[in-house]
Amino acid sequence: MKKITILDIAKELGITFSTVARALNDHPAISAKTKIAVRETAERLNYRQNKIASSLRSGKSNVIGVLVPSLQVTFFSLVVYGIEQVMNANGYNILLYQSNEKLEQEKNGIETFLQSRVDGIIASISTETTEIAHYQEIITRKTPLLFFDRIPTQLNVPSVTIDDYKGGFIATEHLIKQGYKRILHITDEQDISIFKERLRGYMDALLHYNLKIDENLIIRGNFSLAFGKQVIQEAKASGLNFDAVFALEDFTAMGVMQQLLEYKVNIPEEVGVIGFANESFGSLVTPNLSTIDQQALTMGREVAKLFLKQIKDDSLEDHPEQIVLDPILIVRNSSNKKG
Amino acid sequence: MKKITILDIAKELGITFSTVARALNDHPAISAKTKIAVRETAERLNYRQNKIASSLRSGKSNVIGVLVPSLQVTFFSLVVYGIEQVMNANGYNILLYQSNEKLEQEKNGIETFLQSRVDGIIASISTETTEIAHYQEIITRKTPLLFFDRIPTQLNVPSVTIDDYKGGFIATEHLIKQGYKRILHITDEQDISIFKERLRGYMDALLHYNLKIDENLIIRGNFSLAFGKQVIQEAKASGLNFDAVFALEDFTAMGVMQQLLEYKVNIPEEVGVIGFANESFGSLVTPNLSTIDQQALTMGREVAKLFLKQIKDDSLEDHPEQIVLDPILIVRNSSNKKG
Repeated sequence: MKKITILDIAKELGITFSTVARALNDHPAISAKTKIAVRETAERLNYRQNKIASSLRSGKSNVIGVLVPSLQVTFFSLVVYGIEQVMNANGYNILLYQSNEKLEQEKNGIETFLQSRVDGIIASISTETTEIAHYQEIITRKTPLLFFDRIPTQLNVPSVTIDDYKGGFIATEHLIKQGYKRILHITDEQDISIFKERLRGYMDALLHYNLKIDENLIIRGNFSLAFGKQVIQEAKASGLNFDAVFALEDFTAMGVMQQLLEYKVNIPEEVGVIGFANESFGSLVTPNLSTIDQQALTMGREVAKLFLKQIKDDSLEDHPEQIVLDPILIVRNSSNKKG
Repeated sequence: MKKITILDIAKELGITFSTVARALNDHPAISAKTKIAVRETAERLNYRQNKIASSLRSGKSNVIGVLVPSLQVTFFSLVVYGIEQVMNANGYNILLYQSNEKLEQEKNGIETFLQSRVDGIIASISTETTEIAHYQEIITRKTPLLFFDRIPTQLNVPSVTIDDYKGGFIATEHLIKQGYKRILHITDEQDISIFKERLRGYMDALLHYNLKIDENLIIRGNFSLAFGKQVIQEAKASGLNFDAVFALEDFTAMGVMQQLLEYKVNIPEEVGVIGFANESFGSLVTPNLSTIDQQALTMGREVAKLFLKQIKDDSLEDHPEQIVLDPILIVRNSSNKKG
């Protein structure tokens, strides 16, 4: 059977190729009457739209919007770089929007992308994001949507994440194998799944190695250099006994290190420290900071590849792929007691 | 005299308010005939368009595109944050595009912004950018354009920069006042005005304090941590005599520090080091790094304010404002010999 193209529809209706292409893409310059005629003819001839080709022909944007919490975080800027590498090579341009961890900003970003007629949206949600109506709007409009790293649990869409549970487990396991026994964990008081998973990994590692879970050693707060310092100040004030710290991310771990150094505590001899995310400063500081690498560049490339796969094959819509990457332990001086 | 509004034009022509608004904004759904009629009537009635209000009414995008070399550089991500603060408060959304220091990418970014119908473009050029046709295209289309930090010298448009000459002067002056006499300067071999200005400031400071300019102490290369290390390795190999380093930016200065520490050189006692840009890692490393702060957040806010001023007042087009901010010396341990 001959493959039906836009040209066949144009010939059938006696209108131009570009009018058909624009009608199929709902271009505002085409009248409603023409759009209906084109769609009816397309259906009658059993025309099947090739999304990428039509996008190249028809004035679709070839632009993908990427929404991130903050590009000041190395992890996010590296994921974006990975996305750009693959998408640019495939003829797409990437527009970025920062939510700055605000739900309102995130909604504005989605609206801006839709208004700018992006061909798809890739997002990582803010710490404030509990409602997801703005994402449901994207799905309703049939605009391709994909999440990475921080994903809302209520939606069935493709995603690329790392195994945060495993990350929490191997960070804690490493500290235990270095001989630390009273491991303090700093986590977030908000209900964010990635941090809950890291906490779960921490607890399971303790149990696996026959150490007790001590609720006093689980500190709930936020993530920032200032909070890391505060935790160590309060631990000292209250006389809390600990010999290692696993912080939910690197900036917090850096605050922990700075305050310990100010108290003349030897790192890693007296207290070991490990963070999470492999921020770029970690290898530059003294002692340099052990951490969990999230394969940010790989994640970005996988995000882009999965996105291209989804838009090429409509049938995947019902079975969105969820890729989970392995976290990698990076041992540096801050936790390397046995050398 | 009564102020003429869009409603007056609509009444005069017997068409709707929204048709007039869209015609004035050159919307593709409005016919050429209607557009001409609307414009003629607007002119006859002496209608003066309020750009911001009309943009809110008429479906203009209220989106500003910001093009930066790389958001992995703290300086650029902070400028962007400053722009976002002011523009969001004024009802605008910001879309970002990274050139990743490539001219081709930069051109794609400009094209993507124009295609997405942004209301204006704010840009900082890549190190590769020598031709400027893509910026002239923006000006031809009457899309507002503003530059910050890295600006092409050939265009007469508004801009916000810092005084790089002064930055180079005060960095060098500080080292001289700390007692250093043989100050090595690392600069870029490419023809980039901000780096040339820093070099000029370095040379004038030496002359001002009666020190000789020694061409052997001016190293031309690129900016990266790796190049900073390489400079120190080659200086050692060739037996170059120096007692301080002023690097064109902080990553290069960090490479210098790492290699000096590997050679067991005491910083700042034997060699003093100062960078430029106040990258976030500078205060976290040991010894922490002296630098020149570029007032990134202030720059971002000034960029946004200048942009808003320009679009409110057409008459500024012929006399674009050029704001130059003062650099600020940040003295930390890496150059603080006298304490």
